[in-house]
Amino acid sequence: MTSGLTFLVAARRCEIDELDQLSRTSALVGTIGRLVHALQRERGISNVFIGSGGTRFAEQRLQQIAACEAVTQEVRTALDALQHEPQHLGNGARLFSRVAWVLPGLDGLPALRGRIATLKMPPAEATAAFVKLIAGLLALVFEAADGATDPQISRWLVAMFNFMQGKEFAGQERAFGAAAFTRGRNDDAQRQQWLHLIESQERCFEVFTDFADAALRAHWQQLQDGTGTAELERLRRIGCAAPGGTLVPDLGPVWFDCCTRRIDAMRLVEDRLADELRSLCERKTAQARTELAQYEALLATVQAQGADADTPMPAGFFDAAPAPGGNELADASGATGSRYGRHLERSVLDMVQEQSRRLQAMSDELATVRASLNERKVVERAKGLLMAHRRLSEEEAHKMLRQTAMNQNRRLVEVAESVLAMAEFLPGH
Amino acid sequence: MTSGLTFLVAARRCEIDELDQLSRTSALVGTIGRLVHALQRERGISNVFIGSGGTRFAEQRLQQIAACEAVTQEVRTALDALQHEPQHLGNGARLFSRVAWVLPGLDGLPALRGRIATLKMPPAEATAAFVKLIAGLLALVFEAADGATDPQISRWLVAMFNFMQGKEFAGQERAFGAAAFTRGRNDDAQRQQWLHLIESQERCFEVFTDFADAALRAHWQQLQDGTGTAELERLRRIGCAAPGGTLVPDLGPVWFDCCTRRIDAMRLVEDRLADELRSLCERKTAQARTELAQYEALLATVQAQGADADTPMPAGFFDAAPAPGGNELADASGATGSRYGRHLERSVLDMVQEQSRRLQAMSDELATVRASLNERKVVERAKGLLMAHRRLSEEEAHKMLRQTAMNQNRRLVEVAESVLAMAEFLPGH
Repeated sequence: MTSGLTFLVAARRCEIDELDQLSRTSALVGTIGRLVHALQRERGISNVFIGSGGTRFAEQRLQQIAACEAVTQEVRTALDALQHEPQHLGNGARLFSRVAWVLPGLDGLPALRGRIATLKMPPAEATAAFVKLIAGLLALVFEAADGATDPQISRWLVAMFNFMQGKEFAGQERAFGAAAFTRGRNDDAQRQQWLHLIESQERCFEVFTDFADAALRAHWQQLQDGTGTAELERLRRIGCAAPGGTLVPDLGPVWFDCCTRRIDAMRLVEDRLADELRSLCERKTAQARTELAQYEALLATVQAQGADADTPMPAGFFDAAPAPGGNELADASGATGSRYGRHLERSVLDMVQEQSRRLQAMSDELATVRASLNERKVVERAKGLLMAHRRLSEEEAHKMLRQTAMNQNRRLVEVAESVLAMAEFLPGH
Repeated sequence: MTSGLTFLVAARRCEIDELDQLSRTSALVGTIGRLVHALQRERGISNVFIGSGGTRFAEQRLQQIAACEAVTQEVRTALDALQHEPQHLGNGARLFSRVAWVLPGLDGLPALRGRIATLKMPPAEATAAFVKLIAGLLALVFEAADGATDPQISRWLVAMFNFMQGKEFAGQERAFGAAAFTRGRNDDAQRQQWLHLIESQERCFEVFTDFADAALRAHWQQLQDGTGTAELERLRRIGCAAPGGTLVPDLGPVWFDCCTRRIDAMRLVEDRLADELRSLCERKTAQARTELAQYEALLATVQAQGADADTPMPAGFFDAAPAPGGNELADASGATGSRYGRHLERSVLDMVQEQSRRLQAMSDELATVRASLNERKVVERAKGLLMAHRRLSEEEAHKMLRQTAMNQNRRLVEVAESVLAMAEFLPGH
């Protein structure tokens, strides 16, 4: 007869399946982080290459493409493996759907590079292509964070996603600023867009700081306090507040190098995030396996008692109150004379209650962590709505939201909320 | 090479795995509904049996026990099967943990019945034992509703859970009123508790009405408008507002029969709910399988093109805007000359976007449906807190919350929220 203990063990096994999947997903997120970094570098190098009519960074570009290809292959291998693994987290379909979106992007890279090599693409268009691909990769990371069922791992994945997203805004700012300096001028609209990129970065790093541990926060703070930041802020001030909007093109390379050093330093933080996440997953899985082994040993002992397995246990369930003191696993295993019986059953009930409480607490904590992901979901929903009702592309919808936010001096998420709230007044609804 | 289309197919397969599991869970919920009904009947009969010193309902009791045992066996079989199935919904551990709690209760039923048979148990204690077991079974249904990943199925499961919970409050009211009439009197505290049971029922049926479809709402309304309700309300008035608190014991059986007719009628609504849920699951699964077959056929055609499978598709991903009109599956299959190529890739990207939008919309709708389950979670959390910090049993914690709600004339969930808000002031925190 299947006993409560059997299901206590089954519940543990479910948790281990989920943790195993989270370990794999977390490893994938780490690899994606490296691919995003490689693509960010390639984007920066390609911009300079096109901007200089193919005279600068030609060699670096080929090296960077090779580096990118190597990591792309790692990501592809990880995604292939993912496809054949059972999905236990309840968002498998969404995760796979994100992969389905991003793979054609990876497939399209050689063609994109061909157009860049022959200088057939303006820098802005090349930038937009890389931005689109990186956004697809970040959406995968977001889904991984949103699907995590362990609150501690979820917390790290949220920190990781926000850091990666912040770093991507930093990369976009590098391209944006480089273009402005090279152009030699900056108008009001462009200034606003630059400020928006800075704000978006800061917002991401705030969330990262909220969710990272003290050591990583300290690492990040150290990076922020470094000399590079002063230089960055000086160049930002020049770029955004130049009198008459005139900029010195010579500052272009200075700006580019300053941003590159900052982004490369961020990569170190990201590496540490990935390491911490990996070791957290290992610790959690090991702990769960140890506890499972204890439960299984107890179950084996009970089943070895033979006769007991076929006769129901006494009615401890209907006793008025559980014995205080919680988990009596050790006691139960050492019980002699009573041949388990009531004492054991009481212990199993205590263990079940203990486990329920733990799972409940995890679920509550998870809800809190996930709430931090809602902001992005609201923006995505508003974008989807605009795309559907105004027949806009995703880029156009995003631009419209961002422009409205800048004009009204409100946060992007506030504008998105307004859009959703007035959804029924949109044309075509 | 793994293409986006492969993952589009993989995403569909994930959805089908989830739907298959939801079908099984929904079937289990239907079986649990029948067990709960059988236990409710046994509770009512056992109460009368004990109250009459074993002279009334002795025969019916044995018949009802046999009926109960038959359904219990069905539930056990379904739970056994559940254990060996892969869990795709991300709350497998919580579901199993609920099963682990409820199985010792089923194991303890023979011993409970033995004590009732020998009249060694006061009616209130027998009632409390059945209430506890039924609460465990309802917690399983709640977990099934909370874990559903399809919003429409989730909606039905929420309707079902609330209906079952409302029916259980109706059963508790039957026992409570029967005891009051038999006792021949009712004091203020007991009157309040009676009113609380009525309110709790109404709250559950309100949520059920919000989530059920028009046909079921009409069925329920018809039942509410029936002659039984007038009789019930008359007896409730007598029970709760008797001058001086004196009641005529002769009304006890009248009350009991009136409530029993009502609860049996509710069982019909519940049966329809279970039927609708089953056919909804079947429709959804069939539809998902049809769509999967279409995707797979397309994938097979692409793979049969041989050469195409090894060379990347053109860079449609980086095209400025998707072609308007969405899913072009039919077009793509009929495309000639182009050997798929760009046209197909454009279609796959459209299909991916379409699927992403659909999954996103489902996820949003799901969040709305699940929000209705939060109230119970808040109460459970507050109970857990009181149990931990004031060393109360679950029953005591619930009683404390309910008593406070009645004294302060607030809803249970409001009191629970206050308890959580002042958590850090609790002793032992």
